[in-house]
Amino acid sequence: MANASGETEVRVVAQRARTASRALALATRAEKDTALLAMAEDLEAATDAVLAANAEDVSRAEAAGTPTNILDRLRLSPDRVSGMAQGLREVAGLPDPVGEVVRGSTLANGLELRQVRVPFGVVGMIYEARPNVTADAAGICLKSGNAVLLRGSSSARSSNAAIVDVLRRAAERTGLDPDVVQLVPGDGHDSVKELMRARGLVDVLVPRGGAGLIRSVVEESTVPVIETGVGNCHVYVDGAADLDRALAIVLNAKTQRTSVCNAAESLLVHAAVADAFLPTVVPALQEAGVTIHGDESFAAYDGVVPATDEDWDREYLSFDISAAVVPDLEAAIEHVHRHSSGHSDAIVTADQGAARRFVAAVDSAVVLVNASTRFTDGSEFGFGAEIGISTQKLHARGPMGLPEMTSTKYVVTGDGHTR
Amino acid sequence: MANASGETEVRVVAQRARTASRALALATRAEKDTALLAMAEDLEAATDAVLAANAEDVSRAEAAGTPTNILDRLRLSPDRVSGMAQGLREVAGLPDPVGEVVRGSTLANGLELRQVRVPFGVVGMIYEARPNVTADAAGICLKSGNAVLLRGSSSARSSNAAIVDVLRRAAERTGLDPDVVQLVPGDGHDSVKELMRARGLVDVLVPRGGAGLIRSVVEESTVPVIETGVGNCHVYVDGAADLDRALAIVLNAKTQRTSVCNAAESLLVHAAVADAFLPTVVPALQEAGVTIHGDESFAAYDGVVPATDEDWDREYLSFDISAAVVPDLEAAIEHVHRHSSGHSDAIVTADQGAARRFVAAVDSAVVLVNASTRFTDGSEFGFGAEIGISTQKLHARGPMGLPEMTSTKYVVTGDGHTR
Repeated sequence: MANASGETEVRVVAQRARTASRALALATRAEKDTALLAMAEDLEAATDAVLAANAEDVSRAEAAGTPTNILDRLRLSPDRVSGMAQGLREVAGLPDPVGEVVRGSTLANGLELRQVRVPFGVVGMIYEARPNVTADAAGICLKSGNAVLLRGSSSARSSNAAIVDVLRRAAERTGLDPDVVQLVPGDGHDSVKELMRARGLVDVLVPRGGAGLIRSVVEESTVPVIETGVGNCHVYVDGAADLDRALAIVLNAKTQRTSVCNAAESLLVHAAVADAFLPTVVPALQEAGVTIHGDESFAAYDGVVPATDEDWDREYLSFDISAAVVPDLEAAIEHVHRHSSGHSDAIVTADQGAARRFVAAVDSAVVLVNASTRFTDGSEFGFGAEIGISTQKLHARGPMGLPEMTSTKYVVTGDGHTR
Repeated sequence: MANASGETEVRVVAQRARTASRALALATRAEKDTALLAMAEDLEAATDAVLAANAEDVSRAEAAGTPTNILDRLRLSPDRVSGMAQGLREVAGLPDPVGEVVRGSTLANGLELRQVRVPFGVVGMIYEARPNVTADAAGICLKSGNAVLLRGSSSARSSNAAIVDVLRRAAERTGLDPDVVQLVPGDGHDSVKELMRARGLVDVLVPRGGAGLIRSVVEESTVPVIETGVGNCHVYVDGAADLDRALAIVLNAKTQRTSVCNAAESLLVHAAVADAFLPTVVPALQEAGVTIHGDESFAAYDGVVPATDEDWDREYLSFDISAAVVPDLEAAIEHVHRHSSGHSDAIVTADQGAARRFVAAVDSAVVLVNASTRFTDGSEFGFGAEIGISTQKLHARGPMGLPEMTSTKYVVTGDGHTR
């Protein structure tokens, strides 16, 4: 929708964010932390209102026949609201990335050069179902000095509106411009499209959600995008693997939580240990409730479904795994190279040379040796907060914490220097 | 053009680059430097062939009535060929960014975490006129472990083909896959378009050239882009400026070289020093051959052309400058905020508070205090080689050297760790 002057609502909101971002970029850590703590306090105080709004979303979703697992992600509880508040407090406790001097030197001519972290300015978040992302993203963006435009799923619109309302009031009561946190108006794809074309007003877009959402943002956006999250993660059990460790890692990577991007989706086993490992791993996975989509070697076992060509590229996000026997390490690397989404891929091996070769050759955001893919996570990495896991190579790769939500600026100081 | 299997020529070439990039990513520094030095040697040995090819481009351009300044950029000489060779030798002398550990820690559970620099993979360069960019870009990409697809201007096609032919043979004779350096086939916009849509095959595109080229790449590309180079750079002479220094900086920033992106295009003067400074700076600029496009205060002087609204946004790249008197520091910041291209903006002041405020508030890749905007340059910054100057906020901002041509990868090492 456009107003009288031809500006769309989205651009009006983005322009307000741009204005608010200029003051926020200069806010001190103390000012930002005060706002974050106020947001946490107010969110807990407003638990009833947030839950009431959430109940509207849930009953609308139920009426629309939404599957249970999506309903679970949508539904808030007093504990989940406390969890959001706790997340904001934790972000307040993290160091401020803004102002960090990344690099510095004095040049031969006496010019002083510093490369300093600065906020991007305005960050657009496009995300699905879970309303707690609203508070998480707002907190991380605020701490990193960025105004944020939040475009959640329309199924969570009442919850998101209630949460943002609380966050804006809290920002304002501590002296910040409330427009540092805004919802993107409009429910349809048109408003997402406007956001993606708001180059110059929005500095970065971060889509979080399914593969389809991310692909459409990457293809349509003229605003620079940080791609997150699709994970077709592999565990490769090498010929020199300790098979007990391998079993523990495969089970953990596949079954500890299946709906997340760092869960394993594909198992590769070196031919030299196939006879020793398959009789253990196949029943162990099956007992844990996993359906194995296997190549010929795996399909020889009871209950294993023969894999189709598509299986090797699938991110199941469920109790399913594709599985194949490979002749050697190089074949495993080649398989990963062809099918991995570049998120997280692991090797289990006791052979230092094999580990070194796998780490060097596999081109993924995170390469793990003798560890579960489930460790690819901002909080496991000690970053304290995570806006998502980047699977692209530009700017940020892997779990993104506060520093990844900043740019840099060079400051050059002289006393009348000319060339 | 598509071949029998429906693959376009550009995608075939990109696929070859992708294959070549895998081995190059693992090449040692010694292997890469040997290739760079061979390229330098072979380029000098092939001077006659390169100049003959260049003569074809020049005579075609002359016949087409190309302006003299463009012809000058297109024309090679024995010295320019030596310059390219020298550039390759200098890149060989720089440290290898690949393998640098950017960050590392041991987590509480004993997992070892390292963030390591790795090549992007395949870099696409789209650039205009100057054939020496061909050798520069190939050298920087090779050293940073990236295969490069070069799409130069069609006016330089014979020169570029001759240079690339030499570079490929040199790569091959030192044991590298020659496909680490390739020209993008085809002259028309279609081949550029193919390159921009080769997401998955090409990791990053770097357009270098005029504003029109860069805008079209940014808008049409689904491959991530690093935007370079448009510079509407400001020099702000503060109320507390040393006016002798201010004069030297303004003259240097505007006139030392006008065709480059770090040249000043706009002068702002604090009202408090206007009466003292304008009578000096106006004739000094005019004597240097500069046409001033001034606001009312400047236009009161002989020979000053009244500025139009468009002047404040123009990157002249010529002996022209826009000039205005501003009431105070905040008005200067506001003007820069509205009109700067975010490349390089300078303040001249003896007031520490004014410098600090300008540095904090101006949102540009490089902010200079008491120094000419001409210092925004990879070689001036001590980076040794420069692929361009990024004016975007994602990934790299300001002059880009070798480290900016890399991504990172996390390597996580455990001994059977599960969550």
